Amino acid sequence: MALVLALDFGGTKLSAAATRLPFTSPPQWLARRRVYTPESADGLFEYATMLAMARELVVEVGPPDVIGVSFGGPADVTQGVVRLSHHVAGWDNVPLADWLEDEFGVPVVVDNDANAAALGEHRLGAGRGLDDLFYVTVSTGVGGGWVLNGEVHRGRGRMAGEIGHVVVNPGGMACVCGKQGCVEAEACGPAIAKRMQMLVEEYPEWGRPFVEWVGKQGNGQLSIVNGQWSMKITAQEVNAAAHDNIFLARQVLTEAGSFLGQGLGAVCNLMNPQRIILGGGVTKSGPLWWEAVRNTARTHALPEVDVEIVPAELGDDAPLWGAVVLANERVVPLSTSP
Amino acid sequence: MALVLALDFGGTKLSAAATRLPFTSPPQWLARRRVYTPESADGLFEYATMLAMARELVVEVGPPDVIGVSFGGPADVTQGVVRLSHHVAGWDNVPLADWLEDEFGVPVVVDNDANAAALGEHRLGAGRGLDDLFYVTVSTGVGGGWVLNGEVHRGRGRMAGEIGHVVVNPGGMACVCGKQGCVEAEACGPAIAKRMQMLVEEYPEWGRPFVEWVGKQGNGQLSIVNGQWSMKITAQEVNAAAHDNIFLARQVLTEAGSFLGQGLGAVCNLMNPQRIILGGGVTKSGPLWWEAVRNTARTHALPEVDVEIVPAELGDDAPLWGAVVLANERVVPLSTSP
Repeated sequence: MALVLALDFGGTKLSAAATRLPFTSPPQWLARRRVYTPESADGLFEYATMLAMARELVVEVGPPDVIGVSFGGPADVTQGVVRLSHHVAGWDNVPLADWLEDEFGVPVVVDNDANAAALGEHRLGAGRGLDDLFYVTVSTGVGGGWVLNGEVHRGRGRMAGEIGHVVVNPGGMACVCGKQGCVEAEACGPAIAKRMQMLVEEYPEWGRPFVEWVGKQGNGQLSIVNGQWSMKITAQEVNAAAHDNIFLARQVLTEAGSFLGQGLGAVCNLMNPQRIILGGGVTKSGPLWWEAVRNTARTHALPEVDVEIVPAELGDDAPLWGAVVLANERVVPLSTSP
Repeated sequence: MALVLALDFGGTKLSAAATRLPFTSPPQWLARRRVYTPESADGLFEYATMLAMARELVVEVGPPDVIGVSFGGPADVTQGVVRLSHHVAGWDNVPLADWLEDEFGVPVVVDNDANAAALGEHRLGAGRGLDDLFYVTVSTGVGGGWVLNGEVHRGRGRMAGEIGHVVVNPGGMACVCGKQGCVEAEACGPAIAKRMQMLVEEYPEWGRPFVEWVGKQGNGQLSIVNGQWSMKITAQEVNAAAHDNIFLARQVLTEAGSFLGQGLGAVCNLMNPQRIILGGGVTKSGPLWWEAVRNTARTHALPEVDVEIVPAELGDDAPLWGAVVLANERVVPLSTSP
């Protein structure tokens, strides 16, 4: 029974877990760790933190036979190299597989987190038995991964799936990529927070019910700066306020979901996938958000094009499980070993 | 040497041609026919006209061993059924393969024209030797077809490739699909003509140089209706005027190319194809249009994503040649028969 270590470098958190192959049903971790990274974290800090977690796991469950890595940014699976992170500095052209192989002396495979999650959901989650699926993570950023004819489809330069940088609102919110109105800029978690912040500041009267709601929650995000109310809003707060029927929060959440849905409608027209699977923190936003996503995707897809949009079955662990599958399928046929 | 009949049902024209397999290099037709259909044509009229052309070809070159059909609209290749045409009435759920098999007594294969053209370009044209390509036809409508890992990728409901109905200009021109600002509504031939018509009517002063240019060409499109100048503008005229440096025509052509480029940039981010191949009448618009397409696609694709956009090598015959390849590969291994 091969021991696999799975590592996931996310936009704001690092996760590590261990499991044994062959897979149980449902698949289960032997051990699991997670830390949130500070905003100031760079690549080296993240690597060192992940290394410490991985070593803890090795102490707990024993030395791994293989390591699978999911990375939140473009990565070259054939060379095990991270190309860059759009959210964390210092990850340009890092030979992550080599570094980890030197540390642990076992084969390491590295892929983009959305590709890994797509693979994980296809083999173990909401995509079991399908030919084609598109997995989208809606979190600090927005990324996507394809499974076509049962295999991950990465495209010419291993960049396929970048739905986050498809423009859905020309002239809209500024995106990290330099364009305006990309799906990521309009629909990721920080975008939800940012749009609410802008509305509250620009239209204080409209924003008052939300500001009062935040005050009542007593979570300390509200403060007085230069004699004015000031607040640092999070997407989670917007979501919670929307559930408490705060009108402006409902509007902001619906708008973000609609922009994602517009992008997914384009995906349906272009690729007509069997199913679209959504994961990441923002997908926990509840029925209002899901309805906006699904309705807008349905409106934007041609009437003859099926649209099926479902939540990830593996939840936040989709990239981790995908990293295990990747290790299993690309390195050695571990699941059949004794 | 197997004789193949290829039939192409386009938005405004019908083409039929015959060739022998195996392919020569370059591939050559034994005979070829084309007719333009009147705007009033319906499905039955088009079928009858095509049948007459096909029979003429049979008289000329002999009875075919197999027939390949390319259709300008959604079609189910596994059943040989046309699902509908967005441009010509009366094509809903027509069992076109069955009809033609009854007429000619040989196997018939039917596919969407963009899928056929993608396959044709992959085997015989600008996509030879590639893993992945996206073919886009920019003509009366805008459609696309995928070759992935060397094979046509049609998607769950055989609807993949519908770039024409991806929204690039929210709130823009009305599209046949019911949405606004789709690639087709902004970038197809009729859209170029329509935008010029609108500008000339709305801003007569701006439009004057173009109207005068049309007058000088003496092509009879200009007339007096109710005491006012009236004209029926075509995309070809806008293109010719742009080449004669008429400012407004250059603007309209550039804008149409840019909207297509925006859609192609989205395609590059989503699928990272090795090459995009453009065919159809509008692609004959010259360097101004091509530059707008390429520059905008490059701007919309992420910096890490390669963008290679080239004209179809097979020109207007791409769907016809694709129909031949389809017949060859899906029906029987004809190219190796004696």
